[in-house]
Parts: sequence; C-alpha cells; structure tokens
Amino acid sequence: MAEVRLFCIFLLLAVCTAVRYEPNWESLDARPLPSWYDQGKIGIFLHWGVFSVPSYGSEWFWWQWQGQKIPAVVDFMKQNYRADFTYADFAPMFKAEFYNPDQWADIFNASGAQYVVLTTKHHEGFCNWPTKYSWNWNAGDVGPKRDLVGDLANSIRKRTNIHFGVYHSMFEWFNPLFLQDQANNFTTQNFVRDKTMPELYELVNNYEPDLIWSDGDWMTSYDYWNATNFLAWLYNDSPVKDKIVVNDRWGKDARCKHGGFLDCDDSYNPGILQKRKWENCMHLDKYSWGYRRRMKYEDVLGMQPLLQEVMETISCGGNILINVGPTSYGEIPPIFEERLRQMGDWLKVNGEAIYGSKPWSHQNDTVTPGIWYTSKNGSTGPVVYASIPQWPENGEVFLGAPTPSSSTKVTLLGYPKTFDFNPGVSGGLTISIPPINVNDMPCQWIWVFKLEGIKN
Amino acid sequence: MAEVRLFCIFLLLAVCTAVRYEPNWESLDARPLPSWYDQGKIGIFLHWGVFSVPSYGSEWFWWQWQGQKIPAVVDFMKQNYRADFTYADFAPMFKAEFYNPDQWADIFNASGAQYVVLTTKHHEGFCNWPTKYSWNWNAGDVGPKRDLVGDLANSIRKRTNIHFGVYHSMFEWFNPLFLQDQANNFTTQNFVRDKTMPELYELVNNYEPDLIWSDGDWMTSYDYWNATNFLAWLYNDSPVKDKIVVNDRWGKDARCKHGGFLDCDDSYNPGILQKRKWENCMHLDKYSWGYRRRMKYEDVLGMQPLLQEVMETISCGGNILINVGPTSYGEIPPIFEERLRQMGDWLKVNGEAIYGSKPWSHQNDTVTPGIWYTSKNGSTGPVVYASIPQWPENGEVFLGAPTPSSSTKVTLLGYPKTFDFNPGVSGGLTISIPPINVNDMPCQWIWVFKLEGIKN
Amino acid sequence: MAEVRLFCIFLLLAVCTAVRYEPNWESLDARPLPSWYDQGKIGIFLHWGVFSVPSYGSEWFWWQWQGQKIPAVVDFMKQNYRADFTYADFAPMFKAEFYNPDQWADIFNASGAQYVVLTTKHHEGFCNWPTKYSWNWNAGDVGPKRDLVGDLANSIRKRTNIHFGVYHSMFEWFNPLFLQDQANNFTTQNFVRDKTMPELYELVNNYEPDLIWSDGDWMTSYDYWNATNFLAWLYNDSPVKDKIVVNDRWGKDARCKHGGFLDCDDSYNPGILQKRKWENCMHLDKYSWGYRRRMKYEDVLGMQPLLQEVMETISCGGNILINVGPTSYGEIPPIFEERLRQMGDWLKVNGEAIYGSKPWSHQNDTVTPGIWYTSKNGSTGPVVYASIPQWPENGEVFLGAPTPSSSTKVTLLGYPKTFDFNPGVSGGLTISIPPINVNDMPCQWIWVFKLEGIKN
Amino acid sequence: MAEVRLFCIFLLLAVCTAVRYEPNWESLDARPLPSWYDQGKIGIFLHWGVFSVPSYGSEWFWWQWQGQKIPAVVDFMKQNYRADFTYADFAPMFKAEFYNPDQWADIFNASGAQYVVLTTKHHEGFCNWPTKYSWNWNAGDVGPKRDLVGDLANSIRKRTNIHFGVYHSMFEWFNPLFLQDQANNFTTQNFVRDKTMPELYELVNNYEPDLIWSDGDWMTSYDYWNATNFLAWLYNDSPVKDKIVVNDRWGKDARCKHGGFLDCDDSYNPGILQKRKWENCMHLDKYSWGYRRRMKYEDVLGMQPLLQEVMETISCGGNILINVGPTSYGEIPPIFEERLRQMGDWLKVNGEAIYGSKPWSHQNDTVTPGIWYTSKNGSTGPVVYASIPQWPENGEVFLGAPTPSSSTKVTLLGYPKTFDFNPGVSGGLTISIPPINVNDMPCQWIWVFKLEGIKN
Repeated sequence: MAEVRLFCIFLLLAVCTAVRYEPNWESLDARPLPSWYDQGKIGIFLHWGVFSVPSYGSEWFWWQWQGQKIPAVVDFMKQNYRADFTYADFAPMFKAEFYNPDQWADIFNASGAQYVVLTTKHHEGFCNWPTKYSWNWNAGDVGPKRDLVGDLANSIRKRTNIHFGVYHSMFEWFNPLFLQDQANNFTTQNFVRDKTMPELYELVNNYEPDLIWSDGDWMTSYDYWNATNFLAWLYNDSPVKDKIVVNDRWGKDARCKHGGFLDCDDSYNPGILQKRKWENCMHLDKYSWGYRRRMKYEDVLGMQPLLQEVMETISCGGNILINVGPTSYGEIPPIFEERLRQMGDWLKVNGEAIYGSKPWSHQNDTVTPGIWYTSKNGSTGPVVYASIPQWPENGEVFLGAPTPSSSTKVTLLGYPKTFDFNPGVSGGLTISIPPINVNDMPCQWIWVFKLEGIKN
Repeated sequence: MAEVRLFCIFLLLAVCTAVRYEPNWESLDARPLPSWYDQGKIGIFLHWGVFSVPSYGSEWFWWQWQGQKIPAVVDFMKQNYRADFTYADFAPMFKAEFYNPDQWADIFNASGAQYVVLTTKHHEGFCNWPTKYSWNWNAGDVGPKRDLVGDLANSIRKRTNIHFGVYHSMFEWFNPLFLQDQANNFTTQNFVRDKTMPELYELVNNYEPDLIWSDGDWMTSYDYWNATNFLAWLYNDSPVKDKIVVNDRWGKDARCKHGGFLDCDDSYNPGILQKRKWENCMHLDKYSWGYRRRMKYEDVLGMQPLLQEVMETISCGGNILINVGPTSYGEIPPIFEERLRQMGDWLKVNGEAIYGSKPWSHQNDTVTPGIWYTSKNGSTGPVVYASIPQWPENGEVFLGAPTPSSSTKVTLLGYPKTFDFNPGVSGGLTISIPPINVNDMPCQWIWVFKLEGIKN
Repeated sequence: MAEVRLFCIFLLLAVCTAVRYEPNWESLDARPLPSWYDQGKIGIFLHWGVFSVPSYGSEWFWWQWQGQKIPAVVDFMKQNYRADFTYADFAPMFKAEFYNPDQWADIFNASGAQYVVLTTKHHEGFCNWPTKYSWNWNAGDVGPKRDLVGDLANSIRKRTNIHFGVYHSMFEWFNPLFLQDQANNFTTQNFVRDKTMPELYELVNNYEPDLIWSDGDWMTSYDYWNATNFLAWLYNDSPVKDKIVVNDRWGKDARCKHGGFLDCDDSYNPGILQKRKWENCMHLDKYSWGYRRRMKYEDVLGMQPLLQEVMETISCGGNILINVGPTSYGEIPPIFEERLRQMGDWLKVNGEAIYGSKPWSHQNDTVTPGIWYTSKNGSTGPVVYASIPQWPENGEVFLGAPTPSSSTKVTLLGYPKTFDFNPGVSGGLTISIPPINVNDMPCQWIWVFKLEGIKN
Repeated sequence: MAEVRLFCIFLLLAVCTAVRYEPNWESLDARPLPSWYDQGKIGIFLHWGVFSVPSYGSEWFWWQWQGQKIPAVVDFMKQNYRADFTYADFAPMFKAEFYNPDQWADIFNASGAQYVVLTTKHHEGFCNWPTKYSWNWNAGDVGPKRDLVGDLANSIRKRTNIHFGVYHSMFEWFNPLFLQDQANNFTTQNFVRDKTMPELYELVNNYEPDLIWSDGDWMTSYDYWNATNFLAWLYNDSPVKDKIVVNDRWGKDARCKHGGFLDCDDSYNPGILQKRKWENCMHLDKYSWGYRRRMKYEDVLGMQPLLQEVMETISCGGNILINVGPTSYGEIPPIFEERLRQMGDWLKVNGEAIYGSKPWSHQNDTVTPGIWYTSKNGSTGPVVYASIPQWPENGEVFLGAPTPSSSTKVTLLGYPKTFDFNPGVSGGLTISIPPINVNDMPCQWIWVFKLEGIKN
C-alpha cells in the first residue's frame, strides 16, 4: 500500500513538473508570477549606452537628431562635431573607464531596492554585452571593451541579495534589417530571426537574469516578435524557468494585457488598485532616462515627491522602478547617489510598510488627502500602514478609512511610543500627536502610522 | 562762513584722495581694506581650467602626472590616452559648450554668497580669458573659444550685487621662461616681465575686478614677483583703486604677513580670533578644488559640517570662500548646486548673524562645545548671536559666555517667540526650549539664538 | 524553307539559353569564361578599407596587431593610441573626404587596364557599401558616409569601357558568428547564412559587377561556404549571368581547381603555360596591398620589372591584376598614378601585343633569356610578338624560337621601319638593329618586335 | 728677422679677425659671403609644420581659412571638423610618428643637394624646436614631442657634408603681440623683443646653423625687426660668425637690396645675370610649399622642367632651393623622393657643370633657344658647359655663343668620346653628333656639352 502511495506522489510530482506552457497567451498568462517580485516592491532602473556620451536631450538622442531632426539637437551636433560625424562615432568615446560595479552594487544595496534592471540594449541597438550578434556594435568590441552586463550581474550577486534584471529593446531605430521587415509590413521576420531572438537567448543563457524587461515592441504585433514562442521556452526549458519574471511589452497587442507584470506606459501610475501586478517605471531626472550633462538641481526629483510616488504606487498594487542614468565614464552622479541613499535611510525605518505588503481594502484615505495605505496580515487580523505626506500642523491627524476597535493600537514606525486616538463619530479615528523634539523624529519627508487591531 | 567750511571739506577730500601708497609693505599694509569684503563674509570659489577635462586626481593633475609622476595618474593616462599625448592636448577638449554664466550667477545669488572668485589662470598657465600674453594657450584661442572670465563678470554684474574677483597664479609649473628664472635662482625676472605682470595689468584693465586672489607665489620672494610695485599701481592709479581687495600670496616672505586679507594656507582656519582680516578658503569636494568625475556622494561635504565651518570662521573674524569645481562642459554639478541653494535657504533665516557681523568678545562658548558667537551693535548695547550645532536633547541649552541682565531678551532666528532663560549661578544662562513642532522649526543643521540686552 | 530555318535558329537559341548549370563543379566548371576577361589581360586591383587609416604594416593590420601580436605593430599602437583603443575606433577616421571616383576612373583609363577590382569587404569585415547585413560596420554608417562601391562603379561605367569587379572576403577574422561556426568545426553555417550569402546577393543585385573576386575561403570547404549553390544562381538567374566572371577562391578544396579563372596564390606566376585561364595578382608596393604611409620610393616596383612581369604573365596565358592602395582620404598616391600612367603610355605603343593576344607555341625564348612571346592570328598565319627586356648592346638580337621564312617581316612596335635579319644556322633568326636616335625610340623599358610570316 | 715677420703676420691676422661689422647695411653688406654657399648651388627646402596636418590648400591654410576666408577652405573645415575647431586643435595631430631624420639625410645626400633649409617656424608661429619663447605652441610641448630641428641637424651633420640652414618667419599671422605692434603702426616692438629676437638667438646658439633663411618681413621696416643689430651680433660674436649665410628678407626696405644673398620674391628667376648672389626658391608641387594630400601626379614638376630651371638659375648666378613638403607623420612622399634621387643620378653625370661653376660671359645661347651656359676656370682658359634641353633631332646642334679655336675640344659629360664640330660662318660652332645607342646615353632629360679651348 505504501508503495502505491509513494507511486502516486511520484506521479503527482511528475505531472506537476510536467506542466508545460503553450506558446499562446491563455497558457502563458496563467503562469503564477514568482513571488520575489511582488514582495520586493522597489527596483532601480539604469539607462546606460552610447547615448550616455552626448548625454544631451535624452537617451532618444539619435532619434531626436536624425529621425525627428529636432533643431536644438541638430544644432548641438553642428556646433560641437564635424559635419560628417555619425552616431556610431560616439561609441569609441563610451569608455566606462571608472566603472566599478562593486561600488554600484553597494549603492543599490544601500538604497533598499530589491531588484536592478540594466539596459542591455536600447533602441540604438548597441549591446552592453559582448554578443555574437552585433559585431562591432557592442561593448566588448568598441568603447568600454568589457562586459558591462555580466560584470554588474556578478557584483550584485556577490555582494547583495538584489535580483538582477535585463532591459532589452526588441526593435532598433535604424537597423536596416528591421527597416526592411518594416517596409515589408512585417510579413518578413529576418530581423527577429537573426537579431532579436539570438540576443534574447544569449542574454538568458549567459546571465540567467531574474527579470526580462522587454521594450521596443510597440510598432507591431507579438506575432512578428515571436514572443509567445520565446516565452514558452523561457518558462518551460530555460535555465531561469523557475525564477524569471517578465513584463508585458511583447507587441502592440500584448502590452498592458499579456505577459508577466504590466508596465503599460512609461511612468504608468493609475492611482487605483489594479487587478494584475503592475509596475511604475519612472526617472529621477524629470526629463530623461539617460544621463544628461545639462541636468540641473531643479530637474532632479526631491525626496518628498519621490517617496509619495513610492507610497501611491505600492498602495495600488504596483512595484516602482526608479531610474538613474550613469555617465559614459561609469559613475552614478552624486545627486542620484544621495537620493538613493536617503531612500535607503527612509526604508530602514519604514520598510515594514513596503516590503511584502499587500494593498489594503482602501488605497488612499476617504477623508484626508495624500494618505496612502498598505497592509500586512497580523496575528490578530490585518495590520494597516497609513503614510502621511506632511507632519500634522495641529497635533492630530484624522484617518477616515480604518474603523478602530477596543484593541486598536496606533504607533509610528521608528518611534517608541503608542499614540492615543479618538474614534470618529461616523467612523475613522483621530490620532493625537504630542509635540516631538526634532531629534526624536524617526525620519523626514513622509511618516507611516501603523494600526493594529482595527475592524476592517 | 559756509563757503569757508565747504572749501575746507574740499581741501580735506583733496588731501585724502591725494594719499599715495609707496611700493613697500609698510605703506601698502596701511591701506584700509574696503569694507564690502568684511561685510560680505561668504564667497564662492571656482576652480576651472584645462584640468577640468581629465578631471581626475585634482586640479594639480599635470603636476601629479609629469612632475610627481604619481603612479595612479601615470597609469590613468596610459590606460586612456595614446602614448605621446600631452597635457596641452587636453585643451581642445575644454569646450565649455553648455557654459551659461547667467545661470551660474543665479545659483551664486541663491547661495547667499557676496563675492565670487574665478581661476583666471591656474598653475597650468592656461588663461581663461583671451589674453595677448599666452598665445594659443588661452580660452579665446583653444577650447572654449570665448572669454570665460569676462562673460562671468558681465552676468554677475548684470543680475546680482555679488562682487567679482579673479584668482591668478603667478607661477606656472612648466613654463620654460619661469623655469629659466628659477634655474637662475630668480636673479632674472624675464618671466615676470613678459608674462606675470602683463597678465595682471590686462586682467585689471579689462575686467576691473573687486578682488585679486593671487597664488603661486611660494617659491620665492615678493621682490622677484614685482609685487609691491604692482600693488602700488593698483592702489594709486588703477581703475579699481577704491574698491579693490587683494590677499597675501605675493611671495614666500609676504604670505600670511602682508597685502590685504590673509589666506595663509589652503583651508586655513585657526579657531581663534586673528588680529588681521583673514579668509578660510575650502572646498566642497573633500579631495579636490577642480571637478573630479570620480567624486562620490560621500566625498561631498554635508550641510551640517559646512555651516559649522562657516560659523567657526566668521566667529574668529574670517571670511569663508567655498569652492566648487565646474565641469569642462560648463555646468555646476547638481550636488554642488544643491549645497549652495541649501546654504542660501539657511542664510535667508540666519544671515542676520553673518552679514556685517563682528567677532564678539568670546568666539566660542566657554562651557558648551560647538557653540560659536558673532555680534552686532544694537541700539542698547551689543547683540550677540550664538549658533548651536545640534538641537538640544533635553529642552535646554547652557551658554557660559554671556552674562544676562534684567533686560535680556532671547530669541531664535526665524522663530516668532521669545524664550525663557535662567541666569547661571556663576554666570552664563540656561535657555529653556519648549517642544517645537517639526513644521515650525526655522531651519535645519544649525540654529542661531539671538541675545539682546546682555551685560558684556 | 526560310521559315523552317528561322524556326530552327529560334529553337537553337531557346535550347542554348535554356542551358542551366547544376550546383556542382562538373557543371559549373563547364561554363565558358566570358571572352572580355581573357581579351582584357590587365586589371587594376584596389585594396581600400579601415586598414587604410593606420596604413601601417599592411592591410592585415588588425590580425598583425591582435591576432599574431607582431611586436612592431603592438608597439605602434601603444605609442600612438590610447590603451583601450580598438580596431573599430579607426572606422570613424576613414573619411574618404577627397574621394573623387571620376578622377580614379580617368587614371585607370589612362593606365590601359581593362578591368578594375575593388575590395568591397576585406577580412576585417568592414563593408565599403551601405549593406543591410553589417550594421554600423559599413561605409554608409561610419566613416566615409557614402557608397564607395557604387560610386566607383558609376564613374567607371560613365567615363570608360573598363569592366568593374568586386573583391569580397567570405571570412572575417574576428566576426563572432564565424568564430562560432569555426569552433563547431564548420558543422554549422550561421555565418554563411546571415552574412556571407546575403552580402554576395546584395552586391550582385545592387552593382551588377562583371567580376567577383572571392577570397577568405581557405580555412574550410566550399560546402561550408555554399559556393556551388551561389554560383549556380549567379550563372543561371542573376542579372549578370551572361557577363559575370569569377575566380577560384571558393573553398580550400576549390582553390586552384574550380570556378572561373584561377588565382591560386597571391602573386601566382608559374612561368609556364597553364591549361586553364589564370591570373597573377600582384602589388606595386612590394610590401603591402593596402596603402602604407611609410612606403618609400625604393619599395615601389619600377616600370621595367613591372612590364617584365606583365609580359611573362600574359605569355603564359595569364591576366595580370596590378594592385594599388588608395589612402584613407581617398587619393591614389602620385607615385602609383605615375606608374599607371607610364604603363598606359607604354601600352599605347605596345598594346597590340597584349590585348586579345594568345600564348604562342613558345612562351619564352629558347636561347636568349628574358624574351617572352605572345601571338595573334594574322591573315597569312600567326603573328608573333617578342618582347625584349633591354635594348641590345651590340646592334643585334637573336631569337631562337621562331623559324623565319622567305616572307618573314620583322618590325618594332611604334617604329616605322622594317628590320633586316639573318636566319640562324640551326633555326631562329638574328635581327639587325641599326643605331636609333634616342628621340625616335618608341618607348622605354621593354620593346616588342613583331614577326609576321614565320613558319611556326 | 724671421721672428719679426712672424710677429707681423700674427699682428695682421689679429687685425683682420678684429674686423667688426656695424649695425648698418653699408657695413653688413660689405661682408663677403662664405664661399660654401655659391659653390653648393643646389639646396633642398622643407616646409613642415602644423599646416602639414590639414595639408589642404597650402602652408597658408590658417590664413586662407580665417584670414582670407577662402570659401573652399572654409567649407573644407565645415565638412570635416566640428564647428568650434581651432587651428591650434591641429597641433596634437602633428605627430611626426615616423620621422626618421637619418633617412631624410640619406635622401638629401642622394639628391646631390649641398644644403638643406628647414622651416623652424612658419607664419603660423608654431616652433619646430622646443623653444622657451612659445610655450605650448612648439614641437616639444605639443604634437611631435621632439626636437624636429635639432634631430635633423644632427642626422645631416653625422651622415653627410650637407650644410644645415634654418628658415624662420619673423612675423606671425595671428600672434596678438604682433597684432598689437601692428595696430600701433610698429611704433612699439614688444613682439620683436619678447618673441622674434629671443627665438633667433636661441636658434643660433642651439643649432649653430650655416644659413638663416629669414621670412615674414614684408609688412614693415628692418628697423622694427631689429635686423641690423641682430646681424651685427651674428657676424661679430655669434658661434657661427665665420660660416653663416643669410638672405635678404629682413624688412620691406631690405628685401632684394641688403643682407647676404637675395631671394627677392618666391620663385624669383630673372633669366639674366645678377650683380649680387641670389637664389631661386621654388617648389616641386606646383601649388604648394607644404604637403597637400590632394596633390596629383600632374601637379608635380617633371624632371625635364626641373633640370631646365636648375640650369637657367645657375647660369645667371643664382642658387636653386628646391622645396618638398614632408607629411605630418614625418615621411618624404615617394614621388618627391623619386625626383630627388633622379636629380642625384643626373648630377652624378653633370655635377661638373654645376658645383663650383661660375656664370659665363653668355648665360643662354645667342642663337639656339633653351641652351644655358656655365663655366669654370680650366688650366688653359675657360671651360664652358652648354646644357641642351632636348636631344638634337638631326645629328647636330649649333651653339652661337662660343668661338672655337684650333685647340677647341668638345665632349659630352658622361660620354667617353670627343665630338667633331664645324666653326660657324659668323661665329659659333656646329657640333656633330653621331647616332648613340640608347644604352650609351649618359643621362636623360638634359645633356651638357663641355667645351675646352674656346676663345671667349
């Protein structure tokens, strides 16, 4: 009898492990998202490439110059480069001579982020790893002369528990093979066969990323991009099949609908709870993903709006992916490092309300504006976290959404004492806040109240 | 009778204006320092030049590379430049292509600084203005192709009330004319005659600076440098004779002894009251005056230590000259802009204790460490300002130096209420500080108590 | 009856044009070589590419530097370029800014050459035309920013009757796709599928060349290179099927055996008659095909040895392909232009013995060394041309190979008079040469006697 | 008595050597020209500098670009360099990386030239030696990083008997010190004091040249240039006082009148005998002294016109200074090397008529055009050399100028036999020239008959 049971277990296991995804969205969308992603909440996005050399306009520099022909960009080139200078001429200047991925890993670790996504190839087509499929237009052959992708993956894995993800643009503005397929109304797929697919397989096999952040999909269907076949392989047979997370940018008919989590548009932040896991990718430089040499102090997002964006995103079920642009010589600009380290300091106090949290029944408060909620399961019912975007003027704050009970306990993350409160006449509660010496304030910018033992 | 009086006044004026300085230190040192300098207290120092291109090591890059041959610097050149690359080859890369002196002026104005000092020529010898005396080694001929000095002077004068000063290195590391004079034990002065003097005269006549910040003097005597003759002309006959302020670096036997105010050494900060007006020139990047591309966030002085340095310097009678290094492309790095603007915010609250202040009878407190004093003349006796470097933990702070009277009034700059205090048993007073809501705190980092009606 | 004949002719034509070649050597080798090639005899070879920028060592510069690591080349790079300079960094410097293909065409025309072969892609992989298959590693994207191949083809066709040929290296030293196939022992053909073949088809369709000069075949079999399939298409269906001529470098097992004419090795010059049409490709710079900036006068082949090589090659049934290396800025060096124009002057006198000639029964003389023969069909038997490499010292020259008859007539090309001769005792003839005023000499370097009415 | 005589001789010598020249032209012009110069006849001129980098237009490139603003040159810069590129930006590209002065010396030696003149500084002001007076605008500091002048002087003196001369431009197009003096109508001499004079003294003291080829004088008087004082020092006290030769370009009022030999204008060739020693400086590239990358074969002077120019110049008492332009990387272009070596071959045969020769009573023939004469003193009267520019068509040449005697002997330089001649009816003689086998012709291009024993 025992043997029969054992046999059944084996059979069950075999069946379970035998679950294979089909190359269609119904099957692929059914795959559960590996849990690390939702639990991590905060990631760092890095836009780095040949565009980091002119570092003018944005990472869309090439397109602005020779596609759109934006006068300011055209003029910048005329003023500063010889008449027959080409975009490819920038590549030798992308030297990354100070690139120290160990230092980067330490900064990211100090920021409290749980994953990092690096542009391995942006729309310019320049590959930041020594690929076989983009000869003389990759970081091994020209410019940095090293494996920017692999070196960062190694440093992050060696020094931190951060997950490593790869951004990859499927299309390339000016690649003649792509332009030919496009001219054929995407009835041919030579570009996908010879370039996009070999690169994606190579990235997965070489670096075993935890996340693929696909982009450059929007011109045409996932069919052209061979997306479902690739994902079926990725989920069934690839070396990362158990941990891999992908986004939704696999075709204009897939975006915001299919795949793993949904990025939808850049800086997507719907403000209400979403049915499916989503992500808000946004940038610290208000005007660019890639580093801009002309970036001023006022162009850099401040800590208060940044953390407000973090709380709003997470309250609604999203992750936030915060972008910084490294320089062509391989440094994270100090103003960005400052933001990241200050976020890390804040998270040391308030991370309890972030990591592993779930959206609560309410996302933002019903009465007091600017207050966003997250929650966790507590031993005696839900624990709710209410973040307040400014310190109360008059010694009290009213929360309209929670219903207190007799066992309700109110504390402030990072502060040792319990707070008194009064139930509201028609629900909610007013927390009484005694004067606190500035030295005893747990943090700056945004503060998080923790409510235990509430009714809802 | 009135006519007689008027005549006498005219005569007096004529005699006064007829005072002429002799080219010796006794006479020159007797000239009163124009008052704008002591009243201004805070200046911005800018180190900008060809060294901003490698922006590696420090502004002493050339000397580190080919004088000292520091291995890290030698290696950096080997790794990144062809074997026969010379320092002069960096000049064409110094393009200043984004240089917008109006924006710089606005930042400096927002910082609360009252004067700005720009390196017109550092030890490398490259002149930031289109001089006649350094052909093809100046910003008009090579690199920026514009007058960096004049353009900043114009913007500052057009948009602000800030005073404009010029840093000028008398010696040049590798100038063969200087090296020849040096080899002759400074018995010849060809370099001074053909280079140093023509440049200084040209600077004064072209730009009419408010301040000359001389440097590069230390190898030899002021005699070699022709300093007293130059200063006599400057004080007697130059177009800036009434407003000009100079420092003390006019020869190894003049430095810290003669001239206008005393700079003595770099980052000079004696911590006790000085007999003569002096200046603490220091840098926000802990490791360099010139911009370093490798500067990390942790290398940048924080606001608290910066303001502490400001208070300590001013309490002891000094001015502080705060250095930032612009990039070769003409931008003030955002992390520096942030520091400067935050200092400006702080000065909007606390400038009363700074601008136009005088050292008090005590510089720092006799009992409580870290507290520094400044003072002003009030209508009913001295007004004393006590700056405290951290907010008191326990609701009170003890000041040992001031002796309170019955009419003593204690306030906090930027805060509307008066504070209670108790006289100490053996002098001094204890200020009682009630809890203050964080929103009502007037500033961060350092706070200034104002004491009126004290006895001493 | 006439209709029947006409029908038969049509049928015959139909059958003839219906001949289709099979993708095997037996069939392909059976195709007759289009006649223009054998008749033309003399071609110009052009080695031009990114290697023209360092123009040091030879066109194998990249391999010498990073493959073989020849010390002199490694050292040259160390002395003159930064440590992380890559070969790809040379491409932006390949500007061809003075390239005037009309001028080139005029020089080639003046040289008397009947075909020109340009390197469209050498082993470095850089394509001199704006191909779809080598993005950012071609002359349209980087460096010249124009179609070097098409522009030369157009100029040659517009201004001359010279045939236009394309050199194409199938392999590329450092292309990772090739290296991968090689690592797989050539069991995979990804490189051929994605690179070699698309390029060759593109070249043929875009430029309709008269000649394909294949190279870079030697590492492996024609099977790997897909050569027979390509040639079958070329001969059957391509737009150049009637005029196209190819060489033999299609695989290590094809070279010197199969294809069109045989190039065998570089500078192949067997000195005896060959069964199959062959070619001697050689270079005017004794040490390089590509331009060398260090080329000295003594490195350049003189006119006498050049013409001697021409005669020897043609006598043995070969064509000669004479190489010159243009500069990276697009000029034919004057010393090469001089050689080419002087050859043209010589051919204006002696072309009769070259163009359209056939090997004679003897290639070189049986008795007098240095004399080489060509022949043509005359109206009354063969016409024989004997070239003599130096002017006879003593007023006579003995030819051992021809047997004179009573109707034999001896003349000198370019000279108006007939020469006397005496038959030799055991065959041959001695030509008597009277003194000729230097002004009346028809040419320099090599002279050609024409013999009509000889017995053999 | 003998002692007395000896004493007198010593006294005489002392007096002779005590001759001192005054700083005025009457005195300076009286100095005899050291004999080596007139005897040498043929020199090589080298134009080398920063202009060799663009090597476009001519060595006047800077002026053409930014002075005259010639459209083709302005356009060339726009097409090939960034908008803010300056002329000084070319200097780092002047690398002279292949410069081998030993090889140059060997080529010059093979050419038969007896002196070499190198541009040590052209109007651009860039010094080809590491001067103290042009910091960062000289070959020691920027570009070549070596002493181009000293290295050539050493190689020439080590390997040959050629005399070494220095070209030096007194004025500089864009030097602000010069422009200032010019704006002052040359009433100030700061430029001469600080730049021109120190450089000339440095050149003489460092390199001890045999010849100073002054230039750039034409804008103003020798007074401004301090020329007579310099020459007085040069002739009286300099280390080269015994051997030095100078030209006449010392001021607009000195040129073609005063100094050593007269250069007058560029390519000065008056065609008639001059009273004073003069020089014809001319260039092998018909359009430029400096190297031009666009130089075509047809732009290079052929051997026949070159040698015709040589003969015409020397017949009229001039020296000829033949210019070649080296490349920025330090090579003599092969087409120039060919010309020089061919001239050397010709001089091996015909040098007897050149070196040490004197103008004859006639310079060119009175009857037959194109024939020019030189002469020497023979043991039995004058020896006359008649150069003929083409080989006679009809076996005889008529010379109208010489009057034969009974002892007249006519030979051809390089040919072993004596020629018959017939006296002309009204003077002159007709030389009979038998047919000569082309192998026995002594040279190409121009032939020289030697006439001994003639009456005049």
